[in-house]
Amino acid sequence: MSKNIFFENKGPFTLTQLFSNQKDSLELKDVKALTEATKFDITFFDSLIYKNFAKETKASACITTEKLKKYLPKTCIAIIVKNVLYEMARVAKFFYPTSDIDFPDLSLKQPTNNDYKSVKFGNNVLIGKNVKLGENTIIGSNSIIEQNVQMGKDCVIGSQVILKNTIIGDNVVIQDGCKIGLKGFGFIPNKSINIKFPHIGKVVIHKNVEIASSCTIDRGSIDDTIINENTYLDNQVHVAHNVKIGKNCMIAGQVGFAGSCIIGDNVSIGGQAGISGHIKIGNNVKVGGGSGVIKDIPDNSVVMGYPAIPLKNFIKDWKKN
Amino acid sequence: MSKNIFFENKGPFTLTQLFSNQKDSLELKDVKALTEATKFDITFFDSLIYKNFAKETKASACITTEKLKKYLPKTCIAIIVKNVLYEMARVAKFFYPTSDIDFPDLSLKQPTNNDYKSVKFGNNVLIGKNVKLGENTIIGSNSIIEQNVQMGKDCVIGSQVILKNTIIGDNVVIQDGCKIGLKGFGFIPNKSINIKFPHIGKVVIHKNVEIASSCTIDRGSIDDTIINENTYLDNQVHVAHNVKIGKNCMIAGQVGFAGSCIIGDNVSIGGQAGISGHIKIGNNVKVGGGSGVIKDIPDNSVVMGYPAIPLKNFIKDWKKN
Amino acid sequence: MSKNIFFENKGPFTLTQLFSNQKDSLELKDVKALTEATKFDITFFDSLIYKNFAKETKASACITTEKLKKYLPKTCIAIIVKNVLYEMARVAKFFYPTSDIDFPDLSLKQPTNNDYKSVKFGNNVLIGKNVKLGENTIIGSNSIIEQNVQMGKDCVIGSQVILKNTIIGDNVVIQDGCKIGLKGFGFIPNKSINIKFPHIGKVVIHKNVEIASSCTIDRGSIDDTIINENTYLDNQVHVAHNVKIGKNCMIAGQVGFAGSCIIGDNVSIGGQAGISGHIKIGNNVKVGGGSGVIKDIPDNSVVMGYPAIPLKNFIKDWKKN
Repeated sequence: MSKNIFFENKGPFTLTQLFSNQKDSLELKDVKALTEATKFDITFFDSLIYKNFAKETKASACITTEKLKKYLPKTCIAIIVKNVLYEMARVAKFFYPTSDIDFPDLSLKQPTNNDYKSVKFGNNVLIGKNVKLGENTIIGSNSIIEQNVQMGKDCVIGSQVILKNTIIGDNVVIQDGCKIGLKGFGFIPNKSINIKFPHIGKVVIHKNVEIASSCTIDRGSIDDTIINENTYLDNQVHVAHNVKIGKNCMIAGQVGFAGSCIIGDNVSIGGQAGISGHIKIGNNVKVGGGSGVIKDIPDNSVVMGYPAIPLKNFIKDWKKN
Repeated sequence: MSKNIFFENKGPFTLTQLFSNQKDSLELKDVKALTEATKFDITFFDSLIYKNFAKETKASACITTEKLKKYLPKTCIAIIVKNVLYEMARVAKFFYPTSDIDFPDLSLKQPTNNDYKSVKFGNNVLIGKNVKLGENTIIGSNSIIEQNVQMGKDCVIGSQVILKNTIIGDNVVIQDGCKIGLKGFGFIPNKSINIKFPHIGKVVIHKNVEIASSCTIDRGSIDDTIINENTYLDNQVHVAHNVKIGKNCMIAGQVGFAGSCIIGDNVSIGGQAGISGHIKIGNNVKVGGGSGVIKDIPDNSVVMGYPAIPLKNFIKDWKKN
Repeated sequence: MSKNIFFENKGPFTLTQLFSNQKDSLELKDVKALTEATKFDITFFDSLIYKNFAKETKASACITTEKLKKYLPKTCIAIIVKNVLYEMARVAKFFYPTSDIDFPDLSLKQPTNNDYKSVKFGNNVLIGKNVKLGENTIIGSNSIIEQNVQMGKDCVIGSQVILKNTIIGDNVVIQDGCKIGLKGFGFIPNKSINIKFPHIGKVVIHKNVEIASSCTIDRGSIDDTIINENTYLDNQVHVAHNVKIGKNCMIAGQVGFAGSCIIGDNVSIGGQAGISGHIKIGNNVKVGGGSGVIKDIPDNSVVMGYPAIPLKNFIKDWKKN
């Protein structure tokens, strides 16, 4: 995640330009997540959950609180604020002013035969500027691929799909009606009018992934949303912003992932289960259908229930009835 | 809700035309909900839940039962029937014969530059007759805005959206793939062939609302479905007919609202929660993710669980495991 | 289900061609489910749940295990394997090599006036080869009907619908945004790259059915997915492969049916309920909203809860809180 290929960066800005109470004339070039930031980037740190990432950040400046600043390395200027997310939204809008609303891409055109020689298109496919499509990929009718999307070879994209702010590996299947790369559900509540949180991240879908019909996968806010290789999603799955799903996972129909949750490798999740935001599910975990997972789950666990508990306890409770 | 702008009213009809056992030649001009009806309208009253609305109705006639008629004002003729909803469906079909099936709008055309001077359109946008679009609004590719829809200024409508029977305020964002204003799930079950309930209401979306991708919001049956200002819905939310959602609410992904539920202001509802039909959630309520709310919830409550109970009880129960 | 009208059959193949360790030169013409197979067909039998179907099968050969083979009739050659589903996928791909990925139909065209004289089309409707549409049917804008789909008369298909591998009876309503007949969620997990399970079945929707907006109904894998007459589905329902739903059922919003479950007649299921795979719900059953049904439910039951239990027990438990 070096340069942002989906949103135009209006920076650099000095610290003083971003925060009137800061005297430092340090020039900041970009906004990134704690783990992605490098020198001359600004980042943010708003929860103890991320203290290990904070300790290692390479950012030059970090928006945080008085209480959390002690975890930051000395190379990083701590900008102390009352509301980290509000200030982060404000700063991100400086750099990327149009990233808080999904303005439809008005550069779309029907591709000509010469644009993508070995790609097959259905009818009325619309492609934005600078879209890259790999060899032997097929795109179904009425699908929309917005500007700068990159896709590998041998992909099969169904009909009535929308892709934006997304990078896709080889041999990925995306079935009809999926909407991928849209702005996530992030805003600072405000009674007269909410402040929409900028979403400058993207969606990254690795090779051999299959995504069934009518799924929605939102792009990351500051970070990315990632689906790792050989993971399969069934119909109507909802993946919120910043979620990371590991390799070889099986996600059944209508499962919902709340923002920023992290799922390990080889995880299977039954239909209609929900995973809370900001929690971590280990490797080789099985989550039963309909479960609500509201805390971290260690590797190799089998859980079920709402809230999810070890499967054997769930069955014991059930047998009482 | 004075004149119905979405469905042609075939009335007036006399009481005798509508009910062969009624002798009164009173001429009825329209069908409306208890609270919306005025003189020369016919309404219906089928449940004690609505007795306070019944007492105040200004309708000239009301379809109801022997048991409920006592709540109606003397100015209102009570039409006593066995099956209120069945008779209501029959009467509504007299006035609005095509409102029980969503016939696709066959008047759609691609807008020309002159039709909507300050509106930006993506490719292949289809607009019905008499659609009103406010200044600086943007409509994404392949979206369909059916006849008589009204939209304010500064709205951003994504791609592959369908809007019908809907009135939208200023500065509303609707993301890709939403289907808004369709007929709700209402019918009188019947073994040989169900009787479809007419849906003559609309969807009203107030200013500053944001609706994320792939939501479905059904129009009202006799009443309207309403989303008040500055309320945000995440992806894949389902809003059934006649639902009213207050101001400044946060509705997370995959939440479902059953028909005719009423949600107060400043309510937040976690992902995948379900709200039963015909119940009322007060102001400033927080509903945890995955909850099933099956009874009224008073103002300022925090609930979670299936069925939803006060959060502290939910956590106590959980800790036992 | 005599000849497969949606996928080209590359057979016949001899047993020896399909299984190198089989000496029999018996020529097999097709792959079918236990109950659908006739002479010269190959089938599969992988679970005791289906022993009664196995006993009656007319297939000439059956892929199964050492343990299960005793249930097969003597007329049927048992092919003993370690992983029935893996071998079944392999064999089905011999007969139907392209049925494991939903390649978009590239034969679509806009219909001319002469193609379907009494059918009304919205704008930009796309129709594949050999599609049959009954009299007085209406198809909304931007909808896609892929090759060989058959539809009865007096149907109303909304806008932005996709239909493939589907047979539809008379007087069926399908609202905007539904995706019907897509490949189900079936694969043999494999760490380097999953093996996709072929889906050679179809979706059969009987007369007078109504399907609300944004539902997904997957086609069968070897068998069919069936929705019987006069059954109504609300918005955002997910029906997985091989599911059978009876007559006169009411399925509320966001319900999910996992693969191969069987639902009786006159069943009503409340919003967001989930039905586990391979289970059977009897006739006249009522399932409360939000329930998770994880075992068979006898006729005339009323259940609620997660997992679903008799309603009176559910209420008793609730009142304790």
